[in-house]
Amino acid sequence: MKEFRAPLASVLLTDLYQLTMVTAYHQLGMERTAVFEFFVRALPRERGFLLCGGLEQVLDYLENLRFAPADLEWLEGTGRFTPHSIEFLKGLRFTGDVDAMPEGSVFFADEPVLRVTAALPEAQLAESRIVNLLSFQSMIATKAARCRLAAAARRLVDFGLRRAHGAEAGLLAARACYMAGFDATATVEAGRLFGIPIAGTMAHSFIQAHDDERAAFEDFARVHPRGLTLLIDTYDTIRAAHDVVALCGKGVRVDGVRLDSGDLAVLSREVRSVLDAGGCGHVRIVASGSLDESAIAALLAAGAPIDTFGVGTRLDVSADAPYLDCVYKLEEYAGRPRRKRSLGKSTWPGRKQVFREFDPDGHICRDTIALHDEALPGQPLLQPVMRGGRCLPRPSLAQSRAHARRSIDSLPEECRRIAAPEALIPRVSQRLSALVEQVDREFT
Amino acid sequence: MKEFRAPLASVLLTDLYQLTMVTAYHQLGMERTAVFEFFVRALPRERGFLLCGGLEQVLDYLENLRFAPADLEWLEGTGRFTPHSIEFLKGLRFTGDVDAMPEGSVFFADEPVLRVTAALPEAQLAESRIVNLLSFQSMIATKAARCRLAAAARRLVDFGLRRAHGAEAGLLAARACYMAGFDATATVEAGRLFGIPIAGTMAHSFIQAHDDERAAFEDFARVHPRGLTLLIDTYDTIRAAHDVVALCGKGVRVDGVRLDSGDLAVLSREVRSVLDAGGCGHVRIVASGSLDESAIAALLAAGAPIDTFGVGTRLDVSADAPYLDCVYKLEEYAGRPRRKRSLGKSTWPGRKQVFREFDPDGHICRDTIALHDEALPGQPLLQPVMRGGRCLPRPSLAQSRAHARRSIDSLPEECRRIAAPEALIPRVSQRLSALVEQVDREFT
Repeated sequence: MKEFRAPLASVLLTDLYQLTMVTAYHQLGMERTAVFEFFVRALPRERGFLLCGGLEQVLDYLENLRFAPADLEWLEGTGRFTPHSIEFLKGLRFTGDVDAMPEGSVFFADEPVLRVTAALPEAQLAESRIVNLLSFQSMIATKAARCRLAAAARRLVDFGLRRAHGAEAGLLAARACYMAGFDATATVEAGRLFGIPIAGTMAHSFIQAHDDERAAFEDFARVHPRGLTLLIDTYDTIRAAHDVVALCGKGVRVDGVRLDSGDLAVLSREVRSVLDAGGCGHVRIVASGSLDESAIAALLAAGAPIDTFGVGTRLDVSADAPYLDCVYKLEEYAGRPRRKRSLGKSTWPGRKQVFREFDPDGHICRDTIALHDEALPGQPLLQPVMRGGRCLPRPSLAQSRAHARRSIDSLPEECRRIAAPEALIPRVSQRLSALVEQVDREFT
Repeated sequence: MKEFRAPLASVLLTDLYQLTMVTAYHQLGMERTAVFEFFVRALPRERGFLLCGGLEQVLDYLENLRFAPADLEWLEGTGRFTPHSIEFLKGLRFTGDVDAMPEGSVFFADEPVLRVTAALPEAQLAESRIVNLLSFQSMIATKAARCRLAAAARRLVDFGLRRAHGAEAGLLAARACYMAGFDATATVEAGRLFGIPIAGTMAHSFIQAHDDERAAFEDFARVHPRGLTLLIDTYDTIRAAHDVVALCGKGVRVDGVRLDSGDLAVLSREVRSVLDAGGCGHVRIVASGSLDESAIAALLAAGAPIDTFGVGTRLDVSADAPYLDCVYKLEEYAGRPRRKRSLGKSTWPGRKQVFREFDPDGHICRDTIALHDEALPGQPLLQPVMRGGRCLPRPSLAQSRAHARRSIDSLPEECRRIAAPEALIPRVSQRLSALVEQVDREFT
């Protein structure tokens, strides 16, 4: 039987209409320079900011974008493309420029996060995968950043692989979470691919496979003499906590206990008392099960003595906001700014830049969306990251993680709030506003 | 620069604790037969049924599960595993049995959908990826089936790649949608991988790259003389519909027009009138933009003359229910039934089967969850699909699609409803109920 190995670097990871348009552009001689920008039209209601993620994978994709012989053969077999078009696709590479906000930057509605400047067919072809990669990691990085804000200095571990939408989602979610401030992931392959610390405890099945919970604890301790975390909620959490104390009394090194069900605020306090009374003050409490930033905030507000949060499903699918309303739109072609006017979906024309101003204590006080060549006060957020189809030196994941921390620290309080956050509304420069009117007069 | 090619068949696509437990089982000599079952604990509120998907990929995964030399080397380098454990992992293969509901079967809460019977380490190791694959495709297949119920015989196309959670999600969503009754996908790679019909129109960027919308239509027609679908909402939808009529008058073959914004019910009626009055009764109307089963149902209830729905984001992320509350739990080990009793997460012990009874008109009237060796009325839903680690003959995607159609047709009306559906509640056999009490007496 043929194994399913999704070809994730395939150039056919695109929508059919991209290929239809790309070959049409070629036939029509429309291969002049186009500028596309990726941005989010509106933030989800529950978000006061967004955190960029996924640029690294976009750059990999663009640098390696080409049609393999098998791709061309299959496309030819569809009967949808002329031999002339197939020949054109055969030679197609991405040779353009990319400017982008570094991963780990915070951003807001309508702000271009990535700008592609390339021959129209090259820039068009990449749309589907660029949106796919940037929107997912930005969405997860944002959710993870909110978990970090809720958890303050407590340890956060990504447990979400099993409920993530497929394997790539699990891997890229682990990456986005780490970049946004998580400490570790349970996903082993993400540890290998991205160098993220891995962590894990034990599952209920280990307990259940034994005839008795105490025997399971002893067995696990026997094979992990250098320290272990025990799952204590399979049958009776408090009784199990007493068993952990007894185990420590026998000289076993227990580092932590995990609670995965019930009222975590109540149970963590009771378990803490049992452990402390039994001289196990060093045993840390790990909590998991339907957690997200709101649950973490509520637990800590209730004084729950939890040291580590394992956050899974709701993080890896961004359950309260499982997609971003994001697009990649043509803003300029052949030297002329363009815009879309569709009802509720209109866009700002032209090559743009975002200028960010900070108040004296380092908090963001103003973002201005402007034309790329305006000289406005503030820090320009889009930076060159690819020139002529080749990547410029990139930050490491650790550097992006440090940048994310600084970015999140620069957010105003109302953006950082877990409950009812308020996003910053970027200004639009006068020149950009004037350009809209000009473009609307020119295009019909 | 190193390219990101996620190794989707990697055995390291698992949670660290699986490897910790698997090697512990080996060290402890716990390698007797275990039975794990995958099931959904509770249906999302908005669902009256679920539709199985993803079994094909699970079987591929199990058949090819092995640690490559590079995997073992990396694991050894983590310092978490003894040479003895690494040697054990080196020889590990999945040699067990799998019984499952065929893809395209409808199922309900607590019903085992897949049962793995294998040596404990083999069955444990596979948990994370099994849950990942079955939960995602079942979730998407269910959402797509609801779109099919809402759309009746109208054409449905998956447009969701760009907002899917990564590439694998986009590909597997396309597969799940097609299995559940969609007609086509826009995702080219899904067309190649799974043989799904591909479809697509044109994007706003094609219009915007032209100085004038009419010129864009004429250009697109020039390169697609055998028929085309034109996107008509970039500037003024009704004016564009008149332009389409004029284009048809010049002998251009226009198959369809696409609306992607605004009030689709109102616009589709107006556009239909313009087209019909202009002698373009053959031009079909394609609608897209924030659609899902509820929007489709509302549009059709409002009499919108839409022929094809392009469904994207809300389908490919199952936006109103972006995860299933599903698990893969140990139900038996070494010949003894087991169960988990954690508060709110308790399970039914033992190897189970689901017996489905139909009323005379072919609708499901009763599901009973029972022990696998009970002789109850009805059709047993779990069938052998793998024996000794080798797959038994499998249905094609077309066969699973036909099965899905029959399964959906067999649903009672209250399960099929788009608004406020009610799921069927399976019964539990007397023997299974009695077993719970027995297990609770035995395990503590």
